[in-house]
Amino acid sequence: MRFKQLGFIAALSLSALAEPGMAQTADPLPSWNDGANKTAIINFVEKVTKEGGSGYVAPPERIATFDNDGTLWAEQPLYFQLIFALDQIREQAPQHPEWSTTEPFKSVLAGDSKAVMASGKEGLMKIMAASHAGMTADEFAASVRKWLSESKHPTVERPYNQVVYQPMLELLDYLRANGFKTFIVSGGGIDFMRVFAEETYGIPPEQVVGSTLDAKFEMRDGVPTIVKTGDLMLNDDKAGKPVGIYRHIGRRPILAGGNSDGDLQMLEYTTIARDAEDTTPRFGLLVHHTDAKREWAYDKDSHIGKLEQGLVEAEQRNWTVVDMQVDWKTIYPPQ
Amino acid sequence: MRFKQLGFIAALSLSALAEPGMAQTADPLPSWNDGANKTAIINFVEKVTKEGGSGYVAPPERIATFDNDGTLWAEQPLYFQLIFALDQIREQAPQHPEWSTTEPFKSVLAGDSKAVMASGKEGLMKIMAASHAGMTADEFAASVRKWLSESKHPTVERPYNQVVYQPMLELLDYLRANGFKTFIVSGGGIDFMRVFAEETYGIPPEQVVGSTLDAKFEMRDGVPTIVKTGDLMLNDDKAGKPVGIYRHIGRRPILAGGNSDGDLQMLEYTTIARDAEDTTPRFGLLVHHTDAKREWAYDKDSHIGKLEQGLVEAEQRNWTVVDMQVDWKTIYPPQ
Repeated sequence: MRFKQLGFIAALSLSALAEPGMAQTADPLPSWNDGANKTAIINFVEKVTKEGGSGYVAPPERIATFDNDGTLWAEQPLYFQLIFALDQIREQAPQHPEWSTTEPFKSVLAGDSKAVMASGKEGLMKIMAASHAGMTADEFAASVRKWLSESKHPTVERPYNQVVYQPMLELLDYLRANGFKTFIVSGGGIDFMRVFAEETYGIPPEQVVGSTLDAKFEMRDGVPTIVKTGDLMLNDDKAGKPVGIYRHIGRRPILAGGNSDGDLQMLEYTTIARDAEDTTPRFGLLVHHTDAKREWAYDKDSHIGKLEQGLVEAEQRNWTVVDMQVDWKTIYPPQ
Repeated sequence: MRFKQLGFIAALSLSALAEPGMAQTADPLPSWNDGANKTAIINFVEKVTKEGGSGYVAPPERIATFDNDGTLWAEQPLYFQLIFALDQIREQAPQHPEWSTTEPFKSVLAGDSKAVMASGKEGLMKIMAASHAGMTADEFAASVRKWLSESKHPTVERPYNQVVYQPMLELLDYLRANGFKTFIVSGGGIDFMRVFAEETYGIPPEQVVGSTLDAKFEMRDGVPTIVKTGDLMLNDDKAGKPVGIYRHIGRRPILAGGNSDGDLQMLEYTTIARDAEDTTPRFGLLVHHTDAKREWAYDKDSHIGKLEQGLVEAEQRNWTVVDMQVDWKTIYPPQ
């Protein structure tokens, strides 16, 4: 399903309802309530696209990067990729009788999430290795595709790739319609996200940057094959995000969006001027989860998507903090 | 300078000279002599772009990857990036008095290329580390830009980024005009090539894949800074090329071009069908350096750009081997 088309249709409908005498331009962000934040976004886009204007940015430099978990799709009650990993352990258990007596697998299979958490980082790495490595790239992609088609979010009760934010889909479309190239730069796994990013967000695989396990190439029965190995080549979180941007994109974004302190360095790298000559307009955006009723409300005390320092820096650096409850008309796309 | 525009103008001129009664379609590859290889390229492009045809490939899947050294630009008498590195050692020598007594720097400064070569891989790594790491990304890019603007190829007597192949520039343009996304996938350094790839080839930084040294992010006097470190994250040669494609692009190309045995695995990965259902048309191209008069002639006995196994596989796998002397009307772009 192409959510972006739905956004476009919604925009057209709103336009058709406009009062006579009003400009007939479709609202590019129909799921955003009018207010300072929506105005700031639109002003920025108009500024960088106005040829001859002081803030004009040539199209090749219109790079926009977005975090995924908590920014484009939800991240509660657990990171969706972790739910995928736990589901994979359950699915693969029949082929691994040894797991019934080995931690952290034993606890995963018993549904004892407290014990799973108690296994700490080491346990988590074992879960990730068993579900994300030691298989071909094609096998991994197929396992993600199967999981997305069969699983539903426990409370939103939709496939996980429909638990995405309609206002952010509109923002991606709006940026692209104005010559931006949109990228994901997320702590999530690069090849996990690539399975659905093109269909869900209109972002092709080559514009997805994420945490990366190493891979090797080999011929298997005459077929060229990529095999996923377990070594971490990029932890695309915190200071890893600007490194991922440098490695995969090779130029600084002019707009970056995130929702947690894991996005701090990406927003700093994007928005802080290098020197006095660096006058390119730049935009930092933080999605603040303030909507306990329609979504979740969390920030500085949350283990997932902790946002504390980001709110402090947002004031200093003039980043736009989206108040989900106030700024967003709808949360999820129409089904 | 935008060479691609020159190619377009050349194409228009040829078209104007066409005999009356001939179709007035501009030749998309004016620097290619008519023959089986030019026909094979055009037939492939027409096949994958013909909507409703059996070989149609949707635009997002039209990924084309090209090696750089020896494929898009020349690589004799030495890889240009190595010439850059040696020039950097000479330029930095005043700040490193210790080099006058330390190998391999001593031999570089003495111009004793035999002794430099005798320092082997270890010596080469020291030269690369001194010229490519331990500095910020901006400093490195500036050093490449300065070198390109001040240096000339010893025999062709042009700046190195003009020692590029006009027929390949036309091929890149032709593919893009037909909805392809063109990438570089080269053993050369990713951030070395990114400095000139957009201007020279019309390939933006985010579509350049190359050998990669690690980098780290840090705040320096309040300015977000990427610092290049010395660890090799990707050796983008041989079996490293499909890994680079998987890591940076995330889908298989349908066309790949190279010129040496270092490109074998990229061409295999691109062209060999995975299974009986994999019927997508695919194109492998090898540039064979056969023109001692206008360029250089070398293949199986060359240390640079060795091509031996590639010629054997080309026959088996139906890859197109470009005979530079026969197939190319011109080598370099007009100045």
